[in-house]
Amino acid sequence: MSDPFMQAAIEQAELGLAEGGIPIGSVLVIDGKIVGRGHNQRVQKGSCTLHAEMDCLENAGRLQAADYRRAVLYSTLSPCDMCSGTVLLYGIPKVVIGENQTFQGPEAYLQSRGVELVNLQDERCKSLMQQFIAARPALWFEDIGE
Amino acid sequence: MSDPFMQAAIEQAELGLAEGGIPIGSVLVIDGKIVGRGHNQRVQKGSCTLHAEMDCLENAGRLQAADYRRAVLYSTLSPCDMCSGTVLLYGIPKVVIGENQTFQGPEAYLQSRGVELVNLQDERCKSLMQQFIAARPALWFEDIGE
Repeated sequence: MSDPFMQAAIEQAELGLAEGGIPIGSVLVIDGKIVGRGHNQRVQKGSCTLHAEMDCLENAGRLQAADYRRAVLYSTLSPCDMCSGTVLLYGIPKVVIGENQTFQGPEAYLQSRGVELVNLQDERCKSLMQQFIAARPALWFEDIGE
Repeated sequence: MSDPFMQAAIEQAELGLAEGGIPIGSVLVIDGKIVGRGHNQRVQKGSCTLHAEMDCLENAGRLQAADYRRAVLYSTLSPCDMCSGTVLLYGIPKVVIGENQTFQGPEAYLQSRGVELVNLQDERCKSLMQQFIAARPALWFEDIGE
Protein backbone atom coordinates (compact mmCIF):
# COMPACT_ATOMS: atom_id res chain seq x y z
CA MET A 1 0.00 0.00 0.00
CA SER A 2 1.49 3.30 -1.04
CA ASP A 3 2.03 6.29 1.20
CA PRO A 4 -1.10 8.48 0.96
CA PHE A 5 0.93 11.71 0.97
CA MET A 6 3.19 10.47 -1.83
CA GLN A 7 0.02 9.43 -3.62
CA ALA A 8 -1.20 13.04 -3.35
CA ALA A 9 2.16 14.28 -4.69
CA ILE A 10 1.86 11.87 -7.63
CA GLU A 11 -1.63 13.18 -8.34
CA GLN A 12 -0.11 16.67 -8.54
CA ALA A 13 2.56 15.39 -10.95
CA GLU A 14 -0.11 13.78 -13.13
CA LEU A 15 -2.16 16.98 -13.06
CA GLY A 16 0.89 18.89 -14.26
CA LEU A 17 1.45 16.39 -17.05
CA ALA A 18 -2.19 16.69 -18.14
CA GLU A 19 -1.69 20.47 -18.33
CA GLY A 20 1.27 19.99 -20.70
CA GLY A 21 3.78 20.59 -17.94
CA ILE A 22 6.64 18.82 -16.21
CA PRO A 23 5.33 15.90 -14.13
CA ILE A 24 6.70 16.62 -10.70
CA GLY A 25 4.40 17.06 -7.71
CA SER A 26 4.71 17.95 -4.06
CA VAL A 27 2.69 18.24 -0.88
CA LEU A 28 3.47 19.78 2.51
CA VAL A 29 2.20 17.91 5.55
CA ILE A 30 1.84 19.32 9.06
CA ASP A 31 0.45 17.28 11.95
CA GLY A 32 -0.69 14.58 9.55
CA LYS A 33 -2.65 16.93 7.29
CA ILE A 34 -1.85 18.25 3.83
CA VAL A 35 -1.53 22.05 4.09
CA GLY A 36 -0.22 22.72 0.57
CA ARG A 37 -0.13 21.02 -2.82
CA GLY A 38 1.73 22.00 -5.94
CA HIS A 39 3.33 20.96 -9.20
CA ASN A 40 5.96 22.32 -11.54
CA GLN A 41 4.69 25.48 -13.28
CA ARG A 42 7.43 26.15 -15.85
CA VAL A 43 5.14 25.64 -18.81
CA GLN A 44 1.83 26.65 -17.26
CA LYS A 45 2.97 29.94 -15.69
CA GLY A 46 6.20 30.51 -17.61
CA SER A 47 7.92 30.22 -14.25
CA CYS A 48 11.58 29.48 -13.60
CA THR A 49 11.13 29.43 -9.83
CA LEU A 50 7.96 27.36 -9.35
CA HIS A 51 9.36 23.87 -9.21
CA ALA A 52 6.84 21.50 -7.64
CA GLU A 53 8.18 21.99 -4.12
CA MET A 54 8.20 25.79 -4.50
CA ASP A 55 4.65 25.82 -5.90
CA CYS A 56 3.55 23.64 -2.99
CA LEU A 57 5.16 25.92 -0.39
CA GLU A 58 3.78 28.99 -2.15
CA ASN A 59 0.29 27.49 -2.10
CA ALA A 60 0.66 26.68 1.60
CA GLY A 61 1.00 30.42 2.15
CA ARG A 62 2.83 32.43 4.78
CA LEU A 63 3.52 30.08 7.68
CA GLN A 64 5.36 30.63 10.92
CA ALA A 65 8.74 29.10 11.69
CA ALA A 66 7.13 26.77 14.23
CA ASP A 67 4.87 25.39 11.50
CA TYR A 68 7.70 24.60 9.10
CA ARG A 69 9.67 22.98 11.88
CA ARG A 70 7.18 20.18 12.31
CA ALA A 71 6.42 19.81 8.61
CA VAL A 72 7.28 17.07 6.13
CA LEU A 73 7.78 17.96 2.47
CA TYR A 74 6.87 15.26 -0.04
CA SER A 75 8.15 15.41 -3.60
CA THR A 76 7.93 12.90 -6.41
CA LEU A 77 11.57 13.69 -7.28
CA SER A 78 14.79 14.41 -5.37
CA PRO A 79 14.81 18.20 -4.72
CA CYS A 80 17.23 20.35 -6.72
CA ASP A 81 19.59 22.96 -5.23
CA MET A 82 16.84 25.61 -5.20
CA CYS A 83 14.20 23.47 -3.51
CA SER A 84 16.74 21.99 -1.09
CA GLY A 85 17.83 25.51 -0.18
CA THR A 86 14.22 26.39 0.54
CA VAL A 87 13.91 23.41 2.88
CA LEU A 88 16.97 24.75 4.71
CA LEU A 89 15.71 28.34 4.81
CA TYR A 90 12.52 27.30 6.54
CA GLY A 91 14.01 24.56 8.68
CA ILE A 92 11.77 21.80 7.34
CA PRO A 93 13.17 18.77 9.17
CA LYS A 94 12.07 15.93 6.88
CA VAL A 95 11.79 15.38 3.14
CA VAL A 96 10.22 12.28 1.57
CA ILE A 97 11.01 11.72 -2.10
CA GLY A 98 9.57 9.39 -4.70
CA GLU A 99 12.85 8.67 -6.42
CA ASN A 100 16.33 9.98 -7.25
CA GLN A 101 17.26 7.89 -10.28
CA THR A 102 16.17 10.33 -13.00
CA PHE A 103 17.61 13.33 -11.11
CA GLN A 104 19.45 13.70 -7.83
CA GLY A 105 19.73 16.95 -5.93
CA PRO A 106 22.19 17.76 -3.13
CA GLU A 107 20.92 15.05 -0.79
CA ALA A 108 24.17 14.63 1.16
CA TYR A 109 24.31 18.38 1.76
CA LEU A 110 20.71 18.42 3.01
CA GLN A 111 21.54 15.57 5.37
CA SER A 112 24.73 17.31 6.53
CA ARG A 113 22.52 20.25 7.53
CA GLY A 114 20.32 17.97 9.62
CA VAL A 115 17.46 17.17 7.27
CA GLU A 116 16.05 13.63 7.37
CA LEU A 117 15.63 12.25 3.86
CA VAL A 118 13.50 9.23 2.97
CA ASN A 119 13.50 7.76 -0.55
CA LEU A 120 10.43 5.66 -1.31
CA GLN A 121 11.90 4.44 -4.64
CA ASP A 122 8.45 4.64 -6.17
CA GLU A 123 8.13 3.05 -9.62
CA ARG A 124 5.33 5.36 -10.73
CA CYS A 125 7.46 8.41 -9.96
CA LYS A 126 10.36 6.97 -11.96
CA SER A 127 8.12 6.04 -14.86
CA LEU A 128 6.55 9.51 -15.04
CA MET A 129 9.96 11.16 -15.28
CA GLN A 130 11.55 8.60 -17.59
CA GLN A 131 8.75 9.00 -20.11
CA PHE A 132 8.74 12.77 -19.80
CA ILE A 133 12.52 13.15 -20.20
CA ALA A 134 12.48 10.87 -23.26
CA ALA A 135 9.64 12.86 -24.80
CA ARG A 136 10.76 16.42 -24.00
CA PRO A 137 14.48 16.51 -23.19
CA ALA A 138 14.98 20.23 -23.97
CA LEU A 139 12.22 21.25 -21.55
CA TRP A 140 13.64 19.01 -18.87
CA PHE A 141 17.18 20.34 -19.26
CA GLU A 142 15.85 23.90 -19.08
CA ASP A 143 14.17 23.05 -15.79
CA ILE A 144 17.41 21.88 -14.21
CA GLY A 145 19.61 24.60 -15.71
CA GLU A 146 21.47 22.32 -18.11
CA MET B 1 30.49 56.51 -7.49
CA SER B 2 28.19 53.61 -6.82
CA ASP B 3 27.73 50.57 -9.03
CA PRO B 4 24.80 51.30 -11.38
CA PHE B 5 23.45 47.75 -11.10
CA MET B 6 23.52 47.87 -7.30
CA GLN B 7 21.83 51.26 -7.59
CA ALA B 8 19.05 49.56 -9.60
CA ALA B 9 18.77 46.85 -6.93
CA ILE B 10 18.51 49.53 -4.21
CA GLU B 11 15.75 51.23 -6.20
CA GLN B 12 13.88 47.91 -6.14
CA ALA B 13 14.39 47.66 -2.37
CA GLU B 14 13.05 51.18 -1.92
CA LEU B 15 10.08 50.40 -4.14
CA GLY B 16 9.32 47.39 -1.96
CA LEU B 17 9.55 49.51 1.18
CA ALA B 18 7.18 52.09 -0.32
CA GLU B 19 4.70 49.26 -0.98
CA GLY B 20 4.82 48.27 2.71
CA GLY B 21 7.13 45.36 2.02
CA ILE B 22 10.55 44.10 2.99
CA PRO B 23 13.26 46.37 1.52
CA ILE B 24 15.43 43.94 -0.41
CA GLY B 25 15.97 44.34 -4.13
CA SER B 26 17.73 42.46 -6.91
CA VAL B 27 18.61 42.70 -10.58
CA LEU B 28 19.93 40.15 -13.05
CA VAL B 29 22.54 41.37 -15.53
CA ILE B 30 23.56 39.65 -18.76
CA ASP B 31 26.12 41.13 -21.14
CA GLY B 32 26.03 44.42 -19.28
CA LYS B 33 22.24 44.83 -19.47
CA ILE B 34 19.58 44.40 -16.80
CA VAL B 35 17.29 41.55 -17.91
CA GLY B 36 15.26 41.22 -14.71
CA ARG B 37 14.40 43.30 -11.66
CA GLY B 38 12.59 42.30 -8.51
CA HIS B 39 11.99 42.86 -4.83
CA ASN B 40 10.74 40.85 -1.90
CA GLN B 41 7.00 40.10 -2.29
CA ARG B 42 6.12 38.52 1.07
CA VAL B 43 3.72 41.29 2.02
CA GLN B 44 2.61 42.41 -1.44
CA LYS B 45 1.80 38.96 -2.85
CA GLY B 46 1.58 36.93 0.35
CA SER B 47 4.52 34.98 -1.01
CA CYS B 48 6.93 32.80 0.95
CA THR B 49 9.07 32.06 -2.10
CA LEU B 50 9.46 35.45 -3.76
CA HIS B 51 12.48 36.81 -1.99
CA ALA B 52 14.02 39.66 -4.00
CA GLU B 53 16.37 37.40 -5.95
CA MET B 54 13.58 34.93 -6.75
CA ASP B 55 11.23 37.73 -7.88
CA CYS B 56 14.03 39.09 -10.07
CA LEU B 57 14.72 35.71 -11.67
CA GLU B 58 11.00 35.09 -12.11
CA ASN B 59 10.60 38.46 -13.82
CA ALA B 60 13.55 37.69 -16.10
CA GLY B 61 11.48 34.77 -17.39
CA ARG B 62 12.46 31.41 -18.82
CA LEU B 63 16.10 31.67 -19.85
CA GLN B 64 18.44 29.08 -21.30
CA ALA B 65 21.36 27.61 -19.35
CA ALA B 66 23.81 29.53 -21.54
CA ASP B 67 22.16 32.80 -20.49
CA TYR B 68 22.40 32.09 -16.78
CA ARG B 69 26.01 31.03 -17.15
CA ARG B 70 27.14 34.49 -18.17
CA ALA B 71 24.84 36.34 -15.78
CA VAL B 72 25.55 38.32 -12.64
CA LEU B 73 22.94 38.45 -9.88
CA TYR B 74 22.89 41.62 -7.79
CA SER B 75 21.15 41.70 -4.43
CA THR B 76 21.06 44.35 -1.75
CA LEU B 77 21.50 41.59 0.87
CA SER B 78 23.49 38.37 1.20
CA PRO B 79 21.31 35.61 -0.37
CA CYS B 80 19.64 33.10 1.95
CA ASP B 81 19.75 29.31 1.52
CA MET B 82 16.84 29.39 -0.95
CA CYS B 83 18.22 32.12 -3.17
CA SER B 84 21.74 30.69 -2.98
CA GLY B 85 20.36 27.32 -4.02
CA THR B 86 18.69 28.96 -7.01
CA VAL B 87 22.02 30.51 -8.03
CA LEU B 88 23.48 26.99 -7.93
CA LEU B 89 20.57 25.40 -9.83
CA TYR B 90 21.02 27.76 -12.75
CA GLY B 91 24.80 27.96 -12.61
CA ILE B 92 24.93 31.74 -12.18
CA PRO B 93 28.69 32.28 -11.80
CA LYS B 94 28.77 35.62 -9.95
CA VAL B 95 26.77 37.27 -7.19
CA VAL B 96 27.26 40.89 -6.08
CA ILE B 97 25.75 41.78 -2.72
CA GLY B 98 25.14 45.10 -1.00
CA GLU B 99 25.96 43.85 2.48
CA ASN B 100 25.99 40.86 4.82
CA GLN B 101 25.96 42.51 8.25
CA THR B 102 22.21 42.40 8.87
CA PHE B 103 21.92 38.86 7.48
CA GLN B 104 24.41 36.39 6.06
CA GLY B 105 23.47 33.47 3.86
CA PRO B 106 25.63 30.42 3.06
CA GLU B 107 28.36 32.43 1.36
CA ALA B 108 31.17 29.93 2.01
CA TYR B 109 29.05 27.14 0.55
CA LEU B 110 28.30 29.20 -2.57
CA GLN B 111 32.00 29.86 -2.98
CA SER B 112 32.84 26.19 -2.41
CA ARG B 113 30.53 25.39 -5.35
CA GLY B 114 32.45 27.83 -7.56
CA VAL B 115 30.38 31.01 -7.32
CA GLU B 116 32.27 34.32 -7.22
CA LEU B 117 30.91 36.56 -4.49
CA VAL B 118 31.54 40.29 -4.23
CA ASN B 119 30.41 42.31 -1.20
CA LEU B 120 30.11 46.04 -1.88
CA GLN B 121 29.52 46.83 1.81
CA ASP B 122 27.02 49.50 0.80
CA GLU B 123 25.89 51.77 3.63
CA ARG B 124 22.48 52.45 2.08
CA CYS B 125 21.76 48.72 1.92
CA LYS B 126 22.73 48.30 5.56
CA SER B 127 20.68 51.30 6.62
CA LEU B 128 17.55 50.09 4.79
CA MET B 129 17.69 46.73 6.56
CA GLN B 130 18.68 48.04 9.97
CA GLN B 131 15.73 50.42 10.02
CA PHE B 132 13.36 47.78 8.69
CA ILE B 133 14.42 45.08 11.17
CA ALA B 134 14.09 47.54 14.07
CA ALA B 135 10.62 48.60 12.91
CA ARG B 136 9.17 45.19 11.96
CA PRO B 137 11.12 42.37 13.58
CA ALA B 138 8.34 39.74 13.37
CA LEU B 139 7.97 40.23 9.62
CA TRP B 140 11.70 39.99 9.15
CA PHE B 141 12.03 36.80 11.21
CA GLU B 142 9.16 35.27 9.23
CA ASP B 143 11.04 36.01 6.02
CA ILE B 144 14.15 34.13 7.16
CA GLY B 145 12.27 31.26 8.80
CA GLU B 146 13.12 32.19 12.37
